[in-house]
Amino acid sequence: MSKLKRSARLVDMTQYLLDNPHRLIPLATFVERYRSAKSSVSEDLAIIRDVLAGRQLGELVTVAGAAGGVKYVPKIGEAEARAFIEDVCRQLDQPERILPGGYLYMSDLLGRPEVVGRIGRMFASAFADRELDVVMTVETKGIPIAHATAHFLNVPVVIVRRDNRVTEGSSVNINYVSGSSKRIRTMSLARRALKENARVLIVDDFMRAGGTIKGMMDLLQEFNATVRGVGVFVESGDVGEGEHLVTDYLSLAKLAGVDPVTKKIHIEPGNYFTKLSEKKGADSDDH
Amino acid sequence: MSKLKRSARLVDMTQYLLDNPHRLIPLATFVERYRSAKSSVSEDLAIIRDVLAGRQLGELVTVAGAAGGVKYVPKIGEAEARAFIEDVCRQLDQPERILPGGYLYMSDLLGRPEVVGRIGRMFASAFADRELDVVMTVETKGIPIAHATAHFLNVPVVIVRRDNRVTEGSSVNINYVSGSSKRIRTMSLARRALKENARVLIVDDFMRAGGTIKGMMDLLQEFNATVRGVGVFVESGDVGEGEHLVTDYLSLAKLAGVDPVTKKIHIEPGNYFTKLSEKKGADSDDH
Repeated sequence: MSKLKRSARLVDMTQYLLDNPHRLIPLATFVERYRSAKSSVSEDLAIIRDVLAGRQLGELVTVAGAAGGVKYVPKIGEAEARAFIEDVCRQLDQPERILPGGYLYMSDLLGRPEVVGRIGRMFASAFADRELDVVMTVETKGIPIAHATAHFLNVPVVIVRRDNRVTEGSSVNINYVSGSSKRIRTMSLARRALKENARVLIVDDFMRAGGTIKGMMDLLQEFNATVRGVGVFVESGDVGEGEHLVTDYLSLAKLAGVDPVTKKIHIEPGNYFTKLSEKKGADSDDH
Repeated sequence: MSKLKRSARLVDMTQYLLDNPHRLIPLATFVERYRSAKSSVSEDLAIIRDVLAGRQLGELVTVAGAAGGVKYVPKIGEAEARAFIEDVCRQLDQPERILPGGYLYMSDLLGRPEVVGRIGRMFASAFADRELDVVMTVETKGIPIAHATAHFLNVPVVIVRRDNRVTEGSSVNINYVSGSSKRIRTMSLARRALKENARVLIVDDFMRAGGTIKGMMDLLQEFNATVRGVGVFVESGDVGEGEHLVTDYLSLAKLAGVDPVTKKIHIEPGNYFTKLSEKKGADSDDH
């Protein structure tokens, strides 16, 4: 490409950085791409950094030294996150969503790219510093969330199947007890899906007692993998004292109650903001 | 936000446009966002338009008039698309991918956000002018592709299930014959998932004779929906004369043969580029 003016360079660089989140890009890449001086590239990056920070869209982290460069770490601002969760709660709080058994129809929300993208950004923002190798979920409804999160974190997705699939090759299978229904179920993961000692973020669309997520954790032990975090879109408040099988997790919304008779749904923000402010407190104690 | 300089405005506008593909944005939105004159906004858009066109990342379409504005239509350049498909073929052409039954392990590729994103961009590019309401797939491996495509097209995703799910509410179920194995299978779609007369793009990760996709087409008839296009990531060449149940589709790669004994895989680019150049020819005939 021929030498670009600053204005064109800014557009191109912005596009490039947004398209490559959580990837360390050597400054030389930009210097060559634009045939510009390193100082010009640095000035451009400073402008981009300020705009992204101003919009609370994330950080441009600069790593000094020979192996250095710049990395875009996507984040979400608290105000935007809160507004999004409030909007989600409002949308889920509709009587026509109530299904037999007290379930809530959510597939429409989880089919909308902008909703799924926002959920992914929230998880990627919260788990940005966990040094992850992979995002994991179990089929089916968690898959879009896992991919959106993985996109912002620049790691692959691994999908646990409910049954053995011929297209997955040899697999590790475990049985687990579904926390709320107490039924025995199976999950299966291809042997080649995970490398040894992988650091894993588990995400899912819904969690009641956490039996499915506990199942994924047990499965991960078979791969000598470590769970570095758990994120769920909606957790259910309909869990008795001491019934939680998973205690350390992040939830974006909480389904506190569904009354099939009066058609009243009670949904509220999850523990996301509480957990994040706890973390912030802990972080600043460290200093 | 306070009045921005041109450089900051360009960064912000680029981010905003990329984040909102296939959405008509009134110029007034930018005028208010930056407290800038309409002429300045137009100049900025011209710069962004040139860069996106130069990188073959898509078009900024301007719609004139009171209900007008600007719309970013993501595309992919032919060179980049060809390089991507060649890379995919090279990666799939590995003997250790061969599974019993002549299947190919592809879950790792479909777990990588940058691969899935590229597939989505290719489909979104090819079907950009079809006026779609929804992208549809069947669980499980087509889901990431469907979401990536839908993101670039700014439409929701609808997921057909292999069985009836309590979390989907009342559903329409059909039986279909799997084209290659001749087995009878079931698929199910929530009644509320599709509005009447929806225009649908079907995508999937793999197609042999097309039984599954034909099943989705039959299911769509129950919703009075129209199929506006079919896109598959990999098609199998292992289909006899006259066995194809679906004939009008776009494929990115073609698995021409797998020999479990010699461990030879023959994989080549699909019909994507042929179809697109045919279309280009037909379009220019119209003029």
